[in-house]
Amino acid sequence: MKFGIVIFPSKKIQDFANSMRRRYDPHYALIPPHVTLKSSFEATEEEIKEIANKLDTIARNFKPINIQVTKIGSFKPVNNVIYLKIESPEDLERLHNELNATFDDGNQEYNFVPHITIGQKMSDDEHSDVYGSLRMTKVHYEDTADRIHLLYQLDNGSWTVYETFRLGKE
Amino acid sequence: MKFGIVIFPSKKIQDFANSMRRRYDPHYALIPPHVTLKSSFEATEEEIKEIANKLDTIARNFKPINIQVTKIGSFKPVNNVIYLKIESPEDLERLHNELNATFDDGNQEYNFVPHITIGQKMSDDEHSDVYGSLRMTKVHYEDTADRIHLLYQLDNGSWTVYETFRLGKE
Repeated sequence: MKFGIVIFPSKKIQDFANSMRRRYDPHYALIPPHVTLKSSFEATEEEIKEIANKLDTIARNFKPINIQVTKIGSFKPVNNVIYLKIESPEDLERLHNELNATFDDGNQEYNFVPHITIGQKMSDDEHSDVYGSLRMTKVHYEDTADRIHLLYQLDNGSWTVYETFRLGKE
Repeated sequence: MKFGIVIFPSKKIQDFANSMRRRYDPHYALIPPHVTLKSSFEATEEEIKEIANKLDTIARNFKPINIQVTKIGSFKPVNNVIYLKIESPEDLERLHNELNATFDDGNQEYNFVPHITIGQKMSDDEHSDVYGSLRMTKVHYEDTADRIHLLYQLDNGSWTVYETFRLGKE
């Protein structure tokens, strides 16, 4: 079974992201707009209880994290993904690092660039058209992420929330 | 902002439900298969913190609840909804009643028939074809629901999990 750990930003940010995702992201219907903290990893239904307990402990050791959506970016030339860039104090990176150290499966490929994907699986031409028209969009949202979500993937590719963990809960 | 309270059953049950929902339920892409405990109600983002706190308290006062999926049913003639019938000890009804008493918005239209919708928005003919072919399907799943989920709806009609609450957490 595949699991992942994400932040769902505020409704406002999700609605904004979806206004672009519906056209440019084939994963639009599989998962709401999100910031990935730990990309998908394998675990059994038995293991997941222990993972949930660890997550609970980690989450308590963090405070709610301020995030800002500041612009539209692209991972080109690494890949043709277009995203909302997330700026955040060091805490988001610290949380990311702690999660990846705790659930290390040797799967971490890139430096952590916090983002919300709004377009993917595009040809080079499509990417350059779409990114060309979106890159100058003025974007500014602020949000406080006070929860992280543990998800699992169904057979149809969609994601269900297993459990949420509040950051900094006493 | 619209909120709702549901149980997401185990992956096995969700995968089984989706195998039918993908053909018969136009809400297939908007929300994973679920048992509705409190149908959608309006609240502001400020109010929701208080709602979450109340839910936390309610959830602690319940134990994880055994559920069984026993057959495929239909709400006809009330409406053309086809569903997986959920059998459960009294506890599920008690939880439903407590949630609806706590968040009463005069919205409760029917007696509580716990179910997972697998088909809806069908014409009478379509309903009778589909239900005719599904109703004899042998179904038996068991699951322990140990969490409830508070969701909110995005502008595109899809649902995001706000927070989960474990039943019987000390």
